[in-house]
Amino acid sequence: MGNDIYVKYTAFKQDELLKKIRMSISEKRFKHSLAVQKTAVLLAKRFDCNLEKASIAGLVHDYAKERSDEEMIRIIYENNLDETIIAFGNNIWHGVAGAILIKKELGIIDAKILQAVTVHTTGSSNMSLLDKIIYVADFIEPNRNFPGVSKARKLAKVNLDKVVKYEIKRTLLRLLENEAKIYPKTMDTYNKYVAGVNQLST
Amino acid sequence: MGNDIYVKYTAFKQDELLKKIRMSISEKRFKHSLAVQKTAVLLAKRFDCNLEKASIAGLVHDYAKERSDEEMIRIIYENNLDETIIAFGNNIWHGVAGAILIKKELGIIDAKILQAVTVHTTGSSNMSLLDKIIYVADFIEPNRNFPGVSKARKLAKVNLDKVVKYEIKRTLLRLLENEAKIYPKTMDTYNKYVAGVNQLST
Repeated sequence: MGNDIYVKYTAFKQDELLKKIRMSISEKRFKHSLAVQKTAVLLAKRFDCNLEKASIAGLVHDYAKERSDEEMIRIIYENNLDETIIAFGNNIWHGVAGAILIKKELGIIDAKILQAVTVHTTGSSNMSLLDKIIYVADFIEPNRNFPGVSKARKLAKVNLDKVVKYEIKRTLLRLLENEAKIYPKTMDTYNKYVAGVNQLST
Repeated sequence: MGNDIYVKYTAFKQDELLKKIRMSISEKRFKHSLAVQKTAVLLAKRFDCNLEKASIAGLVHDYAKERSDEEMIRIIYENNLDETIIAFGNNIWHGVAGAILIKKELGIIDAKILQAVTVHTTGSSNMSLLDKIIYVADFIEPNRNFPGVSKARKLAKVNLDKVVKYEIKRTLLRLLENEAKIYPKTMDTYNKYVAGVNQLST
């Protein structure tokens, strides 16, 4: 895939887009973004998803992660997003507000890419193949190093839903251990992909 | 407290009420109900809550626990309760539907008692003193025997909110370990009393 996919899905050529992203986030996070892009493309090949969309979504998923709380909260109000999100902090905001910013600033309008960025930290009770690929690529990209990552990488060679299940369960356990806030959508993802609940409100 | 509190809060005298409850649940659960009643009264004395309401709420909290799924689901539909509850099973139903049954069959109309029964398994993000007392009494009554119950009992001698926190965290961890469904209200209780989130949707 060359320059054409950038022009197709964004308002920029490859070098311009990379420069814009690089200026929005730290070097470490930029490196992570490139790694998620690569991993997402690998997973898209493996599980037969649109490679181009996986590539773009992976690259831009954390575009908004280093914006100020003030900017994020303004975006939430200005776009009439669910205000209960405000209590949950940037870990939750940067997906939802990120989708708005990559549309506005990077010219990305593809609905599937925007959706995958929106739910990349929480998952949802109704994840598309692309949603799952970005969610999982963010978890297992080669720079990640946590107990269990090698198990997740092994599962990702065979069954994407099993990694989603492993990832959401681990995420919830870690949040509980840290007595951290749990966003309702994160729990919806757990209920769907771990506990098998099919009738959910969201 | 003698017979008068039963006549005051229910449609029955003490012996009649006990007989009705005894006929609705197993001997083991009846014994548990009497123990929750005693423990709730002790906690109400300790934390300055209405003793009579604690006594009645403790006694009747599991009144609906052994009804059939069919009856529970019918009650949910007939009373226009949130239908998403249906996916979560009797552990969740018997509080919400229980409040409806104790009103209809036992003549209990006190709003605080009904509320405490409604939320006794999930808690809520806005628990009254009586809600907390029933929630905790159900967890620590003398027949309970699980790792951590002695810690919960010690906390209950001093600080009710600390037991609520301990209980909801342990409940969520156990549900996760078992890959069991987590009802959204259970997570709201966690977010409020463990993670300190104040703005919640419910």
